[in-house]
Amino acid sequence: MNPKMQSVDLNADLGEGYGPYKMGDDLAMLDIVSSANVACGFHAGDPNIMAATFQAAAKRGVAIGAHPGFADLANFGRRKLPVSPAEIERIVAYQVGAACAVAALAGHRITYVKAHGALGNMAEQDEGISRAIARGIKAADPALKSLAIAATWSEHGARAEGLDVACEIFADRAYQPNGTLRPRDLPGAVLHDADAISQRIIAMLQEQAIIAIDGTRIPTRIDSICLHGDTQGAVVIAATLKLALQQHGYAIASFAGARPQVQA
Amino acid sequence: MNPKMQSVDLNADLGEGYGPYKMGDDLAMLDIVSSANVACGFHAGDPNIMAATFQAAAKRGVAIGAHPGFADLANFGRRKLPVSPAEIERIVAYQVGAACAVAALAGHRITYVKAHGALGNMAEQDEGISRAIARGIKAADPALKSLAIAATWSEHGARAEGLDVACEIFADRAYQPNGTLRPRDLPGAVLHDADAISQRIIAMLQEQAIIAIDGTRIPTRIDSICLHGDTQGAVVIAATLKLALQQHGYAIASFAGARPQVQA
Amino acid sequence: MNPKMQSVDLNADLGEGYGPYKMGDDLAMLDIVSSANVACGFHAGDPNIMAATFQAAAKRGVAIGAHPGFADLANFGRRKLPVSPAEIERIVAYQVGAACAVAALAGHRITYVKAHGALGNMAEQDEGISRAIARGIKAADPALKSLAIAATWSEHGARAEGLDVACEIFADRAYQPNGTLRPRDLPGAVLHDADAISQRIIAMLQEQAIIAIDGTRIPTRIDSICLHGDTQGAVVIAATLKLALQQHGYAIASFAGARPQVQA
Amino acid sequence: MNPKMQSVDLNADLGEGYGPYKMGDDLAMLDIVSSANVACGFHAGDPNIMAATFQAAAKRGVAIGAHPGFADLANFGRRKLPVSPAEIERIVAYQVGAACAVAALAGHRITYVKAHGALGNMAEQDEGISRAIARGIKAADPALKSLAIAATWSEHGARAEGLDVACEIFADRAYQPNGTLRPRDLPGAVLHDADAISQRIIAMLQEQAIIAIDGTRIPTRIDSICLHGDTQGAVVIAATLKLALQQHGYAIASFAGARPQVQA
Repeated sequence: MNPKMQSVDLNADLGEGYGPYKMGDDLAMLDIVSSANVACGFHAGDPNIMAATFQAAAKRGVAIGAHPGFADLANFGRRKLPVSPAEIERIVAYQVGAACAVAALAGHRITYVKAHGALGNMAEQDEGISRAIARGIKAADPALKSLAIAATWSEHGARAEGLDVACEIFADRAYQPNGTLRPRDLPGAVLHDADAISQRIIAMLQEQAIIAIDGTRIPTRIDSICLHGDTQGAVVIAATLKLALQQHGYAIASFAGARPQVQA
Repeated sequence: MNPKMQSVDLNADLGEGYGPYKMGDDLAMLDIVSSANVACGFHAGDPNIMAATFQAAAKRGVAIGAHPGFADLANFGRRKLPVSPAEIERIVAYQVGAACAVAALAGHRITYVKAHGALGNMAEQDEGISRAIARGIKAADPALKSLAIAATWSEHGARAEGLDVACEIFADRAYQPNGTLRPRDLPGAVLHDADAISQRIIAMLQEQAIIAIDGTRIPTRIDSICLHGDTQGAVVIAATLKLALQQHGYAIASFAGARPQVQA
Repeated sequence: MNPKMQSVDLNADLGEGYGPYKMGDDLAMLDIVSSANVACGFHAGDPNIMAATFQAAAKRGVAIGAHPGFADLANFGRRKLPVSPAEIERIVAYQVGAACAVAALAGHRITYVKAHGALGNMAEQDEGISRAIARGIKAADPALKSLAIAATWSEHGARAEGLDVACEIFADRAYQPNGTLRPRDLPGAVLHDADAISQRIIAMLQEQAIIAIDGTRIPTRIDSICLHGDTQGAVVIAATLKLALQQHGYAIASFAGARPQVQA
Repeated sequence: MNPKMQSVDLNADLGEGYGPYKMGDDLAMLDIVSSANVACGFHAGDPNIMAATFQAAAKRGVAIGAHPGFADLANFGRRKLPVSPAEIERIVAYQVGAACAVAALAGHRITYVKAHGALGNMAEQDEGISRAIARGIKAADPALKSLAIAATWSEHGARAEGLDVACEIFADRAYQPNGTLRPRDLPGAVLHDADAISQRIIAMLQEQAIIAIDGTRIPTRIDSICLHGDTQGAVVIAATLKLALQQHGYAIASFAGARPQVQA
C-alpha cells in the first residue's frame, strides 16, 4: 500500500448461524470486509461454525475478532438482560478465550473484540458495563484491540481500561444530533440507498466526524465502518460502499493490522 | 518439601454446579486435593461458578485444570455421543480457551486439562479421540499438561501429540486384569472402605503399578489419584486417603508444579 | 373430614431439579403439602423429573399443579425478562400442555397452575401479564384453576379471564402495609421462627386478611399457604406450621379438590 | 369432493426454525401440503414459531401434527441418542401436550403425531421405541393419529398400542428391496427429477405398494406422501407432484380428516 494512502476498515458480524441454521451470506461478505466479527457460541455460533468462519477468513486475509454476546440464542442476544458487571467480565473472558483457542485450531488469530447486540448497546450507554467488557477482554489477552462504537462509553470505557481502541461508525444508520444512533422506530433511522450511504460515509471519513441527520458534526476518530450482510440488499450496499471508498483513494485494511497466519 | 520425599497429586472434579444448582461439597474437597478439575460450561459449570471455583482454589494453593466435556448438561456429559474427532478438537479448544481466560480473571492459571465423563471414557478406548482432545488442548496452549487415565489411549494419545502427560489412577474403583476400570454393574466395582482404599493406593504407588481385582499387576507411571466428592462418604474417603499418604511419607502436591498466582 | 371443619391448602414448589441436579428435599415436602407446584422444564425440571414428581405426588394423594416460568435455567426463572404478553400466552400454554400430558403418563392429573418466580412477580404487578398467563392456561385446559398471589393482579387478572382462582399467602414472608411482599433487602422481610410463623398464619386465616408488618389488615380470600422446602430449616417450618394448623382445627386439603387418579 | 374420488395426503416438516433462524420456505409448502408436521421445541421450533405455523396452517385449511424429536437443537434431532424407552415416552408426551395447547391458542387443533429425524428412524427399526412413542402420544390424547413410515415398526408399533395409524411413503427417496429407505450414501438414494418422482408415486398409489429400486413390490397401505421443502428445488418437486396427483384423479386431503377450527 502507498504509505501516503489512507486506509479504513470494513467490518461485519459473521458466523452467526447455529447448528443447522444459517444467518446471512457469510462468504459474500468475507469477500468484501477486512474484519469479521465472529459470534462465540452465546448469542449465536458454535465451535464448528466458528472454526469454519475463521478458516474462510484466513483464506481471504480477513482479520477476525471475537464477537461476544449474551447467552440468549432464542433472541439472538438482542434483549437487554439484567446482568451484573462482574458477570459480564466473566462471560466476555469466557467467549474471547474460547474464540482465541478455536482460531488457533483453524490457523488464524483473533486480533480484536467487538461486543454484540444488547451487550454492545449497554456498553455504549454505561461506563461500568463498557469497562467490565474491557476487563473481560484483558483477561483473555491484553494485546487484543477493542472495536468500539465511536464517541460513546463503548470507546471511552475500553480506553480507560488501557485497551487499544478502534472506533466504528455505521454505514446504514442515521445519527441523532448528539451522536447516538437514531432509534429504529423513528423515520429515516435506516438508510437504504447505496449511493447516498457511500457519499455520507466518505464525507464522515474526510471530516473525521459523525454527521447527524440534521447536519450536526460530532468530531471523532473513525477506524472502521460497520456493514450488515443479512439481506441481499445489504450485501449490495456493502459492495457499493467498498468500491466508492477505493475510488476515493481509501485502501480497505483491518485496523488490527496483523496478517492472519495461514497454515501451509 | 524434603527433596528426597516423594510426592503425589490428589485430583477431583469440582465446579460442577450450574446456575442455582450445586454438585458435591467443593470447599471440603478443595481443602483436600492438590489439583481441581473444573467444569467448563458444557457438561456442567458456568462462567460464574468457574470464576468462584478458581478463586477458591487460588486461595488454597490448589492447581486448576480445565475439565471439558460434551455439551449435554441434562446428562452431565455422561452419554457417549456420536461426535467426530474434528468436532472434538473444536469443543475441547473452545472450553480450554474459555477456562484459561476466566482463570486469569480470577487470579489463577490453568496448568492442565482432563477430559470429563463420556469424552474421557471414549479417549481411553480410542486413539483418534484421545489425539483429537490433545490437539484441542494444544490449540488453547501447548504448554498445558494432560491429566490422563494411566495405561490407556488417554495417556498414549496425548503423549503421541507431544503433550506433557500426567497419569492418574482411581481411588475408589476396582480394576480388571487388563488394567481397565471394572464396569460399575459388576460386583466389587466401587470400593467403599476408606482404610482398604488407602492401603490399595499406597501399594500401587509403591509398586508403580495398577493392582487389578485378581492381583494382576499392570506397571504404570502414577502421578495423581482421582478422588470423588459428590457424597459425604466420598469426602471422608478422600480425607482418610490423604492422611494415610502423608503418614507413609508422601507429600501431596500437584503434578502441574506451577504455583497459582494469587492476586494481592 | 368433618363437613363443618375448615380446610386450607399447603403448597410448595417441587420438581425443581434438572438432569443430575437436585433442588430441595422433595420427598420430605410431599409428605407435608396438599398441593405440589411442579416445574415444567423452562426455569427448572425436565420430563424425567416431572414424571417422577407426579408419581410421588400421586402415591401420597397430593394434588399437582403446573408451575411454568421463563426459559432461563441459569437463573432459575428469577430474572424479570422483557417478554411480550403474546409470548407469555405461548410459553404458558406450552408448559401447561406439556405438564398435563406427562402427568397422564405418570398416572396423575394437573388440576391447577401457578406461575413461577419472575413470571409470577410480573403477573402480581401487571394486569396484562396476569391475563396473558390466564389465556395460556385456558388454551391448555379451561377447567384448570389458577393459584394466585392473594389481593394482587395475579388474582384479579386470572378471574377477569374467567378462571377459577385460589388465593395464596406466604408462610415465611412479611407483608408491607399495602399488601405486597416486603422486599427481601429490607429487614424483617423473611421470617425464620416456626412458632411465630404459625401464629401469624393462623391469625390471617381466622381474620381472612393479610396482616402486614405494621399490623394493617388487608381483607382477602385465603385458600392456600405457600411453603418453601429448599433448606432443612424450611422443611421444619413447614412441618411445624402444618401441625399447628391441624391443632387449630384446620384440615389440610388441596383447593383443587379432585382426587389424584392413582394407577392400580 | 366426489365420494368415489380417491384422496391422498401430502405432508411436510414445517416450523423448523428457532428464534431468529429460519429453515425452508414454510409458506410455500403450506400452499401445497394437506398436513403440516410442526416441530415442538426440542429438535427445532419454539412457542412463537409453533403458534405462527399453526395460524398459517389454519388459514389455509391444512391439518397440523405434532412433530416431536430429540432435545438436540445443535444437530436438528438427527443424531441417534442413547435414550431409554421410558424417557422417550416422557419426551413425546411433553412435546405433544405442549403442541396441543399452543395449537388451541392459535385457533387450530393437533390431529396427529409424526416422530422426527433420529427418533423416527429409531422407531422404524425398533418395536420398543415405536411403542414408547405411541404411549407418549396416548398420554397426551389417545384420539391422536400416528403418521408412521409404511411397512416398518413405526407403523406396527403404533398400531399394537391401539393408535389409529396413517402410513406414509417418501416422494424423493429410493427404497431397498426389503422396503426400507435406501441409505443416503448409496447412489440413487435421493431422487431429483420431478416428473420421474410423480410417476413413481402414482404407480405406488395405484398398486398400494412400495416399489423398490429393483422393481420389487412391497404391498402396503399408503395414506400420505412425505415431501421436503428445505430447498427451492424441493418446493418445485412438491408442486409438480401435487399437480400430477390431481391430474390423475386424486384429491389432496389430510388423512386426519378433521377440519381445522379457524377462529372467526
